[in-house]
Amino acid sequence: MREPLEPDGCESSLAREPLAAGQAGDLARVFKALGDPVRLRILSIVAGHTGGEACVCDLTAAFELSQPTISHHLKVLKEAGLLTSERRASWVYYRVVPERLAELSALLSLPTGAVT
Amino acid sequence: MREPLEPDGCESSLAREPLAAGQAGDLARVFKALGDPVRLRILSIVAGHTGGEACVCDLTAAFELSQPTISHHLKVLKEAGLLTSERRASWVYYRVVPERLAELSALLSLPTGAVT
Repeated sequence: MREPLEPDGCESSLAREPLAAGQAGDLARVFKALGDPVRLRILSIVAGHTGGEACVCDLTAAFELSQPTISHHLKVLKEAGLLTSERRASWVYYRVVPERLAELSALLSLPTGAVT
Repeated sequence: MREPLEPDGCESSLAREPLAAGQAGDLARVFKALGDPVRLRILSIVAGHTGGEACVCDLTAAFELSQPTISHHLKVLKEAGLLTSERRASWVYYRVVPERLAELSALLSLPTGAVT
């Protein structure tokens, strides 16, 4: 799922108007992908890595988990549109998708004064 | 779980430094609460409601779901620290917790230029 969550390209806030059922379903899948401690830590390591990308070797070193388990979590994050990957030589490199994170961040930011 | 997700009160970004396991666990529980379309829609309705609060009656009108089902989702959102509730007369009124949303929003916002 790599298409924008907001079809009109407009960044929305939860408070702007009630989410439509379809849009809520797409967003829920992305939040579900974030709803796992290992996936959040993977995302954090990739986002903070020098050059903005990390290879599986960087990730396996950070966790006491098998490479297939880490690969599964990477797949979930990719399917949610939170990571992209690129194979170079014998390694696959992962980057976060800043636009996706920005969409989610905007969604969770309430307009000033909206909630008193 | 109502205590701040960042014990030092400092709003953090995923990219600032790798999330510690405990912090990732707390955050994952909150994102898991958001990982459901009905709960996202409930949050959106409450956040956008006039006066910043909504009662269960406002929510039951918006969904073809039983009141116990909606109450279950409200409980999950409250336990994640995303909503607070207050009983007045015969109704319970719900409000979003802006600080909690702001924490999550900050977490997902990457520093400009962090990812190139």
